[in-house]
Amino acid sequence: MNLEQMGKAAQDAAYVLAETPTRVKNCALLAMADALEANGSQILAANEQDLSAARNQGMAEAMLDRLMLNPARLKAIADDVRNVVSLQDPVGSELESRVLENGMRLSRRRVPLGVVGVIYEARPNVTIDIAALCLKTGNASILRGGRETFHTNQQLVKVIQQALAVSELPAGCVQYIGEPGREWVSGLLKLDRYVDMIIPRGGPGLHQLCKEQATIPVIIGGFGISHTFVDASADLGRALAVVDNAKTHRPSACNALDTLLVHRAIADGFLPLLSEHMAAKGVELVAEQEALPLLQQGPAKVRAAQQGDFDTEWLSLTLGVKLVADVNEALAHLRAYNASHSDAILTNDLANAERFINGAPSAAVYVNASTRFTDGAQFGLGAEVAVSTQKLHARGPMGLEELTSYKWIGQADYLIRQ
Amino acid sequence: MNLEQMGKAAQDAAYVLAETPTRVKNCALLAMADALEANGSQILAANEQDLSAARNQGMAEAMLDRLMLNPARLKAIADDVRNVVSLQDPVGSELESRVLENGMRLSRRRVPLGVVGVIYEARPNVTIDIAALCLKTGNASILRGGRETFHTNQQLVKVIQQALAVSELPAGCVQYIGEPGREWVSGLLKLDRYVDMIIPRGGPGLHQLCKEQATIPVIIGGFGISHTFVDASADLGRALAVVDNAKTHRPSACNALDTLLVHRAIADGFLPLLSEHMAAKGVELVAEQEALPLLQQGPAKVRAAQQGDFDTEWLSLTLGVKLVADVNEALAHLRAYNASHSDAILTNDLANAERFINGAPSAAVYVNASTRFTDGAQFGLGAEVAVSTQKLHARGPMGLEELTSYKWIGQADYLIRQ
Repeated sequence: MNLEQMGKAAQDAAYVLAETPTRVKNCALLAMADALEANGSQILAANEQDLSAARNQGMAEAMLDRLMLNPARLKAIADDVRNVVSLQDPVGSELESRVLENGMRLSRRRVPLGVVGVIYEARPNVTIDIAALCLKTGNASILRGGRETFHTNQQLVKVIQQALAVSELPAGCVQYIGEPGREWVSGLLKLDRYVDMIIPRGGPGLHQLCKEQATIPVIIGGFGISHTFVDASADLGRALAVVDNAKTHRPSACNALDTLLVHRAIADGFLPLLSEHMAAKGVELVAEQEALPLLQQGPAKVRAAQQGDFDTEWLSLTLGVKLVADVNEALAHLRAYNASHSDAILTNDLANAERFINGAPSAAVYVNASTRFTDGAQFGLGAEVAVSTQKLHARGPMGLEELTSYKWIGQADYLIRQ
Repeated sequence: MNLEQMGKAAQDAAYVLAETPTRVKNCALLAMADALEANGSQILAANEQDLSAARNQGMAEAMLDRLMLNPARLKAIADDVRNVVSLQDPVGSELESRVLENGMRLSRRRVPLGVVGVIYEARPNVTIDIAALCLKTGNASILRGGRETFHTNQQLVKVIQQALAVSELPAGCVQYIGEPGREWVSGLLKLDRYVDMIIPRGGPGLHQLCKEQATIPVIIGGFGISHTFVDASADLGRALAVVDNAKTHRPSACNALDTLLVHRAIADGFLPLLSEHMAAKGVELVAEQEALPLLQQGPAKVRAAQQGDFDTEWLSLTLGVKLVADVNEALAHLRAYNASHSDAILTNDLANAERFINGAPSAAVYVNASTRFTDGAQFGLGAEVAVSTQKLHARGPMGLEELTSYKWIGQADYLIRQ
């Protein structure tokens, strides 16, 4: 099939899904979970093919790990699908309903978006994850995974198609672009006649490509420099524990701390503590000029910050450190360095907390908490489609509701406009 | 200033506006309304300049009328601004607030989008309208009006700047691109570092341009083929009144009826009535093959539908007519002809009404009502920024709330993630 045909098939499937009851969608999801386990050996064999090809091409160990499936991981993926079954279907719920003065009952009802295009990198679990979340919300999906997962994804899509067939849902509900070539991505990004939303799940390069080429609304997100500002009034010992958690709990996460801003008034007391603590955790500090001497007195590895360091999302055990005069200078730093994801203030000062909440340009702002909480599961959304750092449609962790739109419904008795 | 500088100024102003209390924003709006009236003679003189230039270039009478200001229209524009003052400021309201199991108070608070770019055609009222709505919601705006309104807009922007200065708000809150040249539009569409949303207010050509060139989220809308399906069980006399209203109340509106779908079972009774009624209203009928003979028996002007007629938004006293077998065929027509704006079913059959509500791919769906109701004022939104026909962020009439985003706020007691 070419892209035009895939788009048309997806749109037709979306029309069917929009009127499919939750029960049928849930049956398909349960069938999908069961089929994942029943076809485990074929899936793992295909994954082994992908892994050995990737090893031969010299893929890094961390990437290989992301690509790798085993029986336990497959079971976890199937269980995630079963979890999606247990979530409430947002489609059909009323956002508002009122009777206008002219007697018309006007309501807004949640409906599926329609067709969602997802472009992602070498993680086979995303294939099942997104297919399941889209199906639950009545959206057709067109998936484009990384070429490193080609064989694995072929098997996963086969399983998905089995589950759709069992539930008598159209094959167009979930489609996969297996053909190699950038032109398929470019083509998908311009399929605005059929596709309602594009979700890129990958690095900044992929997001930039989508921004530039797409004629379809794109959800930008998943990365951003995270800051924590330790105010003069913070409890230093407890602040250190929060900074430690934000930095070291999972350094590769997009909500992990990148830059620590410290109020100048407490630098003498706090920076030596920081150095000691971070040395024990193996964190390297990258310090701006003023913070450097204080940190160099401690045991942690320190180097002077270079141009670009405060624009860097470290994704590793590295932490930028800078002194600021007050909350206003901290906010100015956030704005200058494009804070957009998760940022925190540690303070006992109510006015400063409120200033920071209002002034930070971030999707998620914390007072006296770790930036690590920005996450669909932590926020109780039940599932996470993506973390948006744009301001339209959805911001921060996106759950099932963010895979829906709404329509206005006006009901009356042959009403005409005066 | 170049676009980069304008973008930076807008973003800086947006930071100020995000923390500006409603009272100050309202003061600026009142000052704007007063200054519009106080500077009436300059504004009208500039408008006269634009009008005579447009007349010399042979602009059509209908377009000249849209461009024309007079004291009454200026007063109406000022009163519209005063009306915006009376609307509730959505910024700062909480969409939700709950305490997570770990003790964190998590809330979502409405915040301004930031910077809104608006590209529009030759209607000077849009300049004030959009500037006022953006200011009320704490957004900075960058406006690009049609070149036909150049002199009028220069005066209007001067008035806006006076009002901002009086209220000590930055000039960057409202900026206008006066320079001629398409490259300014293209440049604005790629200013994603500073601009959060683009609203095109114009025809399909402008929207297509924005879709193709923008690296910023665009709100697509403002046009679409509107359909009304007269089901077999409809009360024919009352159905005729609704069809009349949808077609003739304001034919140039985007929610005016374009295509009438009639259930085959009632064609014999309904089409002659329709012809008689539409003849009296001066409406020309464009009929598909099967409806043609029945309509040709009546007094209305009729012609056979050509390729493309059912894809045409008439914006005039023309109405497409087609017979269908049932609600499913009506829905199939809506889907095939890209219904996206406002569509109605006239019926006494509950199941068909529900089928139509669920199946119509439109932003607004009506049961037994005129399509003319799709409008911010009719829906009680107080103001209308645009009518979106896309599914992301906002769908249908957009009011003040649709000029906002939200941020997540997590407050705790030095909480770390386990």
